[in-house]
Amino acid sequence: MKEVRVSLVGFGNVGRATASVLLKKSRFFEDRYGVKINVVSISDTSGTVWLPEGIDLMEALLVKETFGKLSAWTNDYEVYELTPGDVVREVDAEVVVDVTNDKEAWKWHLAALKEGKSVVTSNKPPLAYHYRELIGEAEKRGVLYLFEATVMAGTPIVGLLRENLLGDDVQSIEAVLNATTTFILTQMERGLSFEEALAKAQKLGIAERDPSGDVLGIDAGYKATILHCLAFHPITYDEIRVRGIAEVTEGEIERAKTKGKTIRLVARVEKGRVAVEPAEIPRESPLAVESHENAAVIRTDLLGELVIKGAGAGLKETASGVVSDIIKAGLRAV
Amino acid sequence: MKEVRVSLVGFGNVGRATASVLLKKSRFFEDRYGVKINVVSISDTSGTVWLPEGIDLMEALLVKETFGKLSAWTNDYEVYELTPGDVVREVDAEVVVDVTNDKEAWKWHLAALKEGKSVVTSNKPPLAYHYRELIGEAEKRGVLYLFEATVMAGTPIVGLLRENLLGDDVQSIEAVLNATTTFILTQMERGLSFEEALAKAQKLGIAERDPSGDVLGIDAGYKATILHCLAFHPITYDEIRVRGIAEVTEGEIERAKTKGKTIRLVARVEKGRVAVEPAEIPRESPLAVESHENAAVIRTDLLGELVIKGAGAGLKETASGVVSDIIKAGLRAV
Repeated sequence: MKEVRVSLVGFGNVGRATASVLLKKSRFFEDRYGVKINVVSISDTSGTVWLPEGIDLMEALLVKETFGKLSAWTNDYEVYELTPGDVVREVDAEVVVDVTNDKEAWKWHLAALKEGKSVVTSNKPPLAYHYRELIGEAEKRGVLYLFEATVMAGTPIVGLLRENLLGDDVQSIEAVLNATTTFILTQMERGLSFEEALAKAQKLGIAERDPSGDVLGIDAGYKATILHCLAFHPITYDEIRVRGIAEVTEGEIERAKTKGKTIRLVARVEKGRVAVEPAEIPRESPLAVESHENAAVIRTDLLGELVIKGAGAGLKETASGVVSDIIKAGLRAV
Repeated sequence: MKEVRVSLVGFGNVGRATASVLLKKSRFFEDRYGVKINVVSISDTSGTVWLPEGIDLMEALLVKETFGKLSAWTNDYEVYELTPGDVVREVDAEVVVDVTNDKEAWKWHLAALKEGKSVVTSNKPPLAYHYRELIGEAEKRGVLYLFEATVMAGTPIVGLLRENLLGDDVQSIEAVLNATTTFILTQMERGLSFEEALAKAQKLGIAERDPSGDVLGIDAGYKATILHCLAFHPITYDEIRVRGIAEVTEGEIERAKTKGKTIRLVARVEKGRVAVEPAEIPRESPLAVESHENAAVIRTDLLGELVIKGAGAGLKETASGVVSDIIKAGLRAV
């Protein structure tokens, strides 16, 4: 059995969901891939638990859920004060996993790649601002830089564009990439005002306390930027046009309805041109998604139209992408 | 510029579409991947053209279109009488491409793998009957055995199941995998009898003169077998249940219509159980495809429901899958 050592940076909702999948399915992964995934360090904002032999994930999850922070873990395990940059340099591991929302994480992603480690991330800003450098460094070092979970959670649109369709020229991608805005727009169709719909989303935990990332289209914009980098060439978030859903009026919603259409926050990605904005979608379009589904329509020269549709949010759905990438990195590393 | 030498076996519709894409997009592939794809032999049933420096694909296409066979090509090029087995053993190449419908092709696929060559195929029976041996041999030799175009043409469901979703357990796949039957059923919905619809399909070149492969569900059955091999474990076509559309009556079509449903030839793939048969599909289901579209709904433990939908037939659509695999094999080989 080959062993892959993993540093898990971030132990919030996605980090815990990832640890939980690694814990529950470790036997399955060993049987199927011949790889034992050994998490040797876990970091949250309170500190880093580091055990070269591998951390008991069940206990880690229990400590975090009981006390809210890893630093509360005193028996058996040492808790260190390490920045992610320190973890990347000091902890012996083949794969570094970033499930934080650290906007400056690109710095320690780059450091990890320079150490010859593969990086798996669900964190979007590093890609939306530093795609070219990060991918370039990974190629130079012969390691992997993987980010399936950054777009459409585990629904494998990144893998689809990166490792498949190699003979096709992508011409355009149209996609609905943010589930929170879909929820709010759906509620508005049912008669709620924007403010009421947002409040309901926050109450249900679908929107964050500061909802601006979703509502202003920033999250969808990051994702659309990443899709452009994959399908065409590297750009940054600063080069795209984004308009969120905050100004969508009840009147616009109603007008769309009477035409048999529905408004969604749609990303349109063409070579050198990315726009994210509310758009009217025919009800029978694959983009007329509901709930936490995302969808993308990819047009290419050979294939014509290709649709991929699946979960775009959710904890185990996001962990699906992170874990798939960890296994991919692991299979390459061993 | 790295060079990948390719033996193209089969120069019918798909073979010519593949050559045509390789010809038209060679500069694009060189720029994008740093790989020059050099076709060093082309075989049809009349003979094999073999030129170690690389064949002029424009001329090859012209000869084939003008004379209907490669053996008519006398100036400049030698035409050899070689079986595919001979080609595999004698021609120096890194990649063997099978775009024939030779049911016994698994024998020379295996020979190619044993020669250390990667194999790219759009030919289904080798996989539907010999998946385990072929994949096993490829793994043993450290070469690739690629078959994107066998299921849903170039729509990358094979890549999706093989190289992505590595952390997920697939629970089931439901799919519409044959476009000819979709055409016939659609025509029946418009009032034609089965015989009339079939005749129309044949007239338009959608169904073959001997339509049994499509109509009896064999083609869809091969594809469903391959999906089972990918998602679960290797089986053969003999182990699955197949019922075609020949017995679908106009009454059944009408009854479905009045319920807001439509009949399609549906493959249901679960662990150890594959069934292909006509089934009523709600009109709003992703499986209610039209025209040459195929669709699959994949259910997994982590992601939930994932839909992939795209071209399932067509020449350049099939070439898309073949060429993507040639590039993939080329990137590995060089």
